[in-house]
Amino acid sequence: MTIFEVWAPKPDTVELEVNGQRHPMRADESGWWRVDVPGIEAGSDYAFVLDGGLPRPDPRSAWQPQGVHGPSRLVDHDAFAWTDQQWRGVPLAGNVLYELHVGTFTEEGTFDAAVGRLDHLADLGVSAVELLPCSAFAGRWGWGYDGVAWYAVHDPYGGPDGLKRFVDACHARGIGVVMDAVYNHLGPAGNYLPEFGPYLTEAHTTPWGPAVNLDMAGSDEVRRYIIGNARMWLHDYHIDGLRLDAVHALVDGRATPLLEELAVEVQALGARLRKPLWLVAESDTNDPRVVTSRAAGGLGLDGQWADDVHHALHATLTGERAGYYGDFGSLPTLAKALTGVFVHDGTWSSFRGRTHGRPVPPTLDGHPFVVYLQNHDQVGNRATGDRIASSLSDGMLQIGAALVLTSPYTPMLWMGEEWGARTPWLFFSDHEGELGEAVRQGRRAEFASHGWDTSGVPDPQSPDTFQKSKLDWSEAADERGCRLRDWNRDLIALRRTLPDLADGHRHRVQVTYDEDARWLVVRRGRTAVACNLAPERQAVPLAGTPDAVLLANRPGFVFRDGFVELDGESVAILDLLRS
Amino acid sequence: MTIFEVWAPKPDTVELEVNGQRHPMRADESGWWRVDVPGIEAGSDYAFVLDGGLPRPDPRSAWQPQGVHGPSRLVDHDAFAWTDQQWRGVPLAGNVLYELHVGTFTEEGTFDAAVGRLDHLADLGVSAVELLPCSAFAGRWGWGYDGVAWYAVHDPYGGPDGLKRFVDACHARGIGVVMDAVYNHLGPAGNYLPEFGPYLTEAHTTPWGPAVNLDMAGSDEVRRYIIGNARMWLHDYHIDGLRLDAVHALVDGRATPLLEELAVEVQALGARLRKPLWLVAESDTNDPRVVTSRAAGGLGLDGQWADDVHHALHATLTGERAGYYGDFGSLPTLAKALTGVFVHDGTWSSFRGRTHGRPVPPTLDGHPFVVYLQNHDQVGNRATGDRIASSLSDGMLQIGAALVLTSPYTPMLWMGEEWGARTPWLFFSDHEGELGEAVRQGRRAEFASHGWDTSGVPDPQSPDTFQKSKLDWSEAADERGCRLRDWNRDLIALRRTLPDLADGHRHRVQVTYDEDARWLVVRRGRTAVACNLAPERQAVPLAGTPDAVLLANRPGFVFRDGFVELDGESVAILDLLRS
Repeated sequence: MTIFEVWAPKPDTVELEVNGQRHPMRADESGWWRVDVPGIEAGSDYAFVLDGGLPRPDPRSAWQPQGVHGPSRLVDHDAFAWTDQQWRGVPLAGNVLYELHVGTFTEEGTFDAAVGRLDHLADLGVSAVELLPCSAFAGRWGWGYDGVAWYAVHDPYGGPDGLKRFVDACHARGIGVVMDAVYNHLGPAGNYLPEFGPYLTEAHTTPWGPAVNLDMAGSDEVRRYIIGNARMWLHDYHIDGLRLDAVHALVDGRATPLLEELAVEVQALGARLRKPLWLVAESDTNDPRVVTSRAAGGLGLDGQWADDVHHALHATLTGERAGYYGDFGSLPTLAKALTGVFVHDGTWSSFRGRTHGRPVPPTLDGHPFVVYLQNHDQVGNRATGDRIASSLSDGMLQIGAALVLTSPYTPMLWMGEEWGARTPWLFFSDHEGELGEAVRQGRRAEFASHGWDTSGVPDPQSPDTFQKSKLDWSEAADERGCRLRDWNRDLIALRRTLPDLADGHRHRVQVTYDEDARWLVVRRGRTAVACNLAPERQAVPLAGTPDAVLLANRPGFVFRDGFVELDGESVAILDLLRS
Repeated sequence: MTIFEVWAPKPDTVELEVNGQRHPMRADESGWWRVDVPGIEAGSDYAFVLDGGLPRPDPRSAWQPQGVHGPSRLVDHDAFAWTDQQWRGVPLAGNVLYELHVGTFTEEGTFDAAVGRLDHLADLGVSAVELLPCSAFAGRWGWGYDGVAWYAVHDPYGGPDGLKRFVDACHARGIGVVMDAVYNHLGPAGNYLPEFGPYLTEAHTTPWGPAVNLDMAGSDEVRRYIIGNARMWLHDYHIDGLRLDAVHALVDGRATPLLEELAVEVQALGARLRKPLWLVAESDTNDPRVVTSRAAGGLGLDGQWADDVHHALHATLTGERAGYYGDFGSLPTLAKALTGVFVHDGTWSSFRGRTHGRPVPPTLDGHPFVVYLQNHDQVGNRATGDRIASSLSDGMLQIGAALVLTSPYTPMLWMGEEWGARTPWLFFSDHEGELGEAVRQGRRAEFASHGWDTSGVPDPQSPDTFQKSKLDWSEAADERGCRLRDWNRDLIALRRTLPDLADGHRHRVQVTYDEDARWLVVRRGRTAVACNLAPERQAVPLAGTPDAVLLANRPGFVFRDGFVELDGESVAILDLLRS
């Protein structure tokens, strides 16, 4: 006997269509419709018929093998043969994440193909991979942020079993898995939820139109839908943490915000499963309250992305100042980012035309803040999707990696960054008809609105744009690729082994620099990360005597009188004698 | 030399028009335009001409003697002869407020006429009067929530000097003054602010349309505009506190919300002026964070209105269950309100169709919560504007007053309530042309949307509707009026003198009741407030032996064996011997 149930307070009648037969369903007062049908096996296709209309997929469908418009396929989560019984999870704090888009990580673009590259990641030493959203979305490929069947795993990636095999294989190698979860909007195609109930509300506006309904009538069930989805990833797919997309776009006026409710539920689930489960928010508010404990009046999430650290690094290394890089680029700004997390901590943001952010209190250490030299957004939102490796020298890349991986934060690499990948990562989509054309025009219009030349902006709808965005693993195997990968691997290993680098104490980070001479030294206890950003060799003051060189990207360093002489665009990590 | 200045980043040119002459102004980078004009005296009329258009009033105009569309008149705040040098303010906590609408408090509807009634309020014993909004709005009369010239005092009330005379006269009688400040929207007529700059944003939606811009580009100056307005009331008009209208409608995604910024500024101003200055929020979120200290992660406001206490009292006393009274009316619910503040503290709200609120932590006492048996909204938003006195017996009114005025909260009376006024207080407005017609239709449509008969809904645009809403002071002087006023006066005096009633300890409040027998006893230390809600005389258990009767609205009480026998619809406040 299989029980089918669906929350659908909107229609007057709901029928289940399964194996070609229709079964009327009955509703209770809360708007949940149910029917028991004997003899239905996992693998059966089904759909719901609302008010006699066209069959619609289950809002909680686990699998959409024919795409987001087609029927749902019944999945038995208990049937998968997990082998990760020994997996005890991995904490977020201070570990190293690796962000990965399934569709472009390998030529095949599947979970199974990604499994074939896990030994590379294990060798690199990352603690967890963070998958771009895997919920089903319209079209064969896309970034994944336009998911509409949140409970279904995108079929072209390999569907539910494909994801389980991937997670199982990660755990077998001691690698955790984070899922990017998008709860702030639904994609523009294939969203049938409004036919079922008040999933969206016109009472609030978001950049995508009506807001996901978190605080108006019916929102209790919408919140359960979201929390249930989070629980599904963590429980049914053995995922270790969630990255919550753009939480500032969750419009939520309730006394207990969804994020707090979610954090409490995830913590309880982790206690039951006896492993750490994380929630990491992408937040544009520069508000330390996101990761402040609930006891101290915060939301109590485990982490949040820190874009300011990226912007400070990117602008310093590349010299770019356009758009949101406008307030970044100086060494004092970089120093502030490397100790205070937020550069905009109540300061004027010229990009926003207002002051922005508030300071991270000294009581918060650095580990809740996820930092990166690149990520999918910072590469993919550029007109030509170019990575910094396409314009920076290897020396500058190595300096950037050193600053991220020796920081008191939680570093994250973007797939291919470890070998200095030069393949672009572009904005690509696979929408049909008018929507496809609208996306194509919209992309151009977006860049045109900034006054930029749009002739070099690839067509997001072209299959070639998707194809070009795939990693070229031959790059990883050549001499340069191996050298850069070794640099990242050595930095990760050093971070793990050196107590000075393993903790998250921000108050023990001291940054000295000379803007004109273009050098910067980050001290963490006895450890000094000495960077020469200038093209020429120069002496960098250390305020200490080196005891050992822990890591250096060029051999030609020389010590004298409290200085280290470094080649142009080079970095050395030193153990200093206590003075 | 008078310096005229205005923030107007939108126009390309701004001219000052004063005394019939135009003077070009010059802008700095921040969008502030300035011009110095010699020989301009206070009392001169002026306006700004943006891009050569029609003259517009100053957004910071202190006086609009010809209405919100006319020129602004220059006011010298230093010129008023204050006599309140001895006034040291009055704290909010636990004191008694008196809400008052200037236009209907007296026949004349002016500040000066209201001064003539202050001895009545001093005799009653209230600590502060709370004025419905006095900022200039379109039309001669209205509730005041559609203000558009926030810095100007509504001229028909008496303008800036009228308000100063009123505040000065209050202070002379030991009465503080609270101003209702509306920062969540601007009225539908006379709002010229968008011609000056980005005061509003389409990025957020509110029930009134585009939101006041608190977090988009240009919002720093909009926030300064609001904070400057608050400072004006507190500094230039010697106001003691602000009631912030509907703060849940302030759409503000910043890490430091406007309310927190405002609270910090007001606290600093109070320190400088050496008197307590308060901020009390009207909030529909049932979120204790509004009044939680900033150290504990809250906004740190001094108080917030507690509608749930009203709803619990109103539904219990009247038996009404329509609309938002649906979840109220039982004695357990009233008991929860009298101890826990919020009835909806994470519970299902049938009116909202979702769960609502969160519990007030035990660390918060009751004083930050302003409670009332009636207020302008709870009377005025009824179709016929009827007060509870028009349907309840005097005995039930006295029970209600006793429960509010012996509560661990901060009680507030609504003008005329003290004598059981039976005049209605209706929704009235004075808009012109199409807007007037739209308001008229809108009022009917609002009640029709609830399925109610609209034939009895008065025309808000009729002068008669305004006239009918004025207090009838002859009611106050008749035998019933005096008896009820004495009851309220005695309760206020008891609250002040009895330590059991003066503190805000919620944990010392114990409520016992019998739903079927319709009695309820509130214990606060030795003091018991015994209420017989039933029409018939009955014995109410006291769990203690009376030592003295402190106050009773009927003489016929009798004690026996731990009971007090009370007449129907009567209340006795007793001092109990410690057992």
